[in-house]
Amino acid sequence: MVFSSALIENAVNEFAKLPGIGKKTALRLVLHLLKQEPAQVEIFGDAMTRMRRQIKFCKHCHNVSDDEVCTICNAASRNNGVVCVVESIRDVMAIENTQQFHGVYHVLGGIISPIDGVGPDQLNIHSLVERVKAQQITEVIMALSPTIEGDTTIYYLSKKLKETPVKITTIARGIAFGGELEYADEMTLARSLTNRLPLENYLQQGK
Amino acid sequence: MVFSSALIENAVNEFAKLPGIGKKTALRLVLHLLKQEPAQVEIFGDAMTRMRRQIKFCKHCHNVSDDEVCTICNAASRNNGVVCVVESIRDVMAIENTQQFHGVYHVLGGIISPIDGVGPDQLNIHSLVERVKAQQITEVIMALSPTIEGDTTIYYLSKKLKETPVKITTIARGIAFGGELEYADEMTLARSLTNRLPLENYLQQGK
Repeated sequence: MVFSSALIENAVNEFAKLPGIGKKTALRLVLHLLKQEPAQVEIFGDAMTRMRRQIKFCKHCHNVSDDEVCTICNAASRNNGVVCVVESIRDVMAIENTQQFHGVYHVLGGIISPIDGVGPDQLNIHSLVERVKAQQITEVIMALSPTIEGDTTIYYLSKKLKETPVKITTIARGIAFGGELEYADEMTLARSLTNRLPLENYLQQGK
Repeated sequence: MVFSSALIENAVNEFAKLPGIGKKTALRLVLHLLKQEPAQVEIFGDAMTRMRRQIKFCKHCHNVSDDEVCTICNAASRNNGVVCVVESIRDVMAIENTQQFHGVYHVLGGIISPIDGVGPDQLNIHSLVERVKAQQITEVIMALSPTIEGDTTIYYLSKKLKETPVKITTIARGIAFGGELEYADEMTLARSLTNRLPLENYLQQGK
């Protein structure tokens, strides 16, 4: 692509480094910014720089936070005895969006995956074990993806936590709402049959 | 969407203001930036701010430029006697990418469109007429979109330039390369028949 301005070319190249954004989209975004007021563009640039410079990671749960301890760990209304173990910050957001979970989180920062060179030491596993040992934690919910890596991580964590009296649970696997039976894979369908629920439970959850 | 950090929420909201970027994509981009080094994110933010603050518009052709006069108008190798009239900066880039045009440009900054409230006075039309009158310009090529607005603008410009001896041409309309005849609209097909070319021309262009 030929640019008549080095400033534009530079901005386009920076945008194109973002995932899923090619040169053409980058150019469209830059030309959009070009139409905005300089002050507005400054706010945009500042928001990114400030976010990266000032963001902290909660010392308890490793979630992103504006302070030492995140708003979730700090909230008096949350049950500190129930810890939901997730892979990433995005999973925290996904669960928070459901507004159904009132415990706290523990962000592993990844998942055990030897192929990608991610072992237990690169993850926030030690701090989870320490947390369970030191605090009054009654339940650890494993909310990891139902993949081989996810199951490996669950298995590893459960062995690490075996010495503690904590109850370990996993989120339910089954047919998603809106999902059609015939398109479900056999394993999910088999599991959802094994873990079938009494009708009262189902109706109650629908409320 | 629930964010546990105001910094992240702010950054996501800024990204989501860009065209074609929703909240989910914005979050993905922000989480990507979060994984980068702070210095790298600073470079990103800076590129946008600097681009908007320092960009200039060429005083001759209104193209974006790092200086008073753009690199195209300044180039000794370009033919200043042939001016290609385009709607926007993006069209300049598209034509430059073909590497087939060696004249200079004139960016109108839009197209006459009463529905959108864009009249001739909002466009860089006066400066084009002045330019044609003052300089040794032999040909003005109208490279505008083949829409009603484009044709209206061409008609308006041709009336404005009538007093000058300049030759006015438009880019060829016809069947695009790779386009199939049966899917072409009737008007384009009819025009491409009327403006048919001798075979020698066609073969020469293919080279």
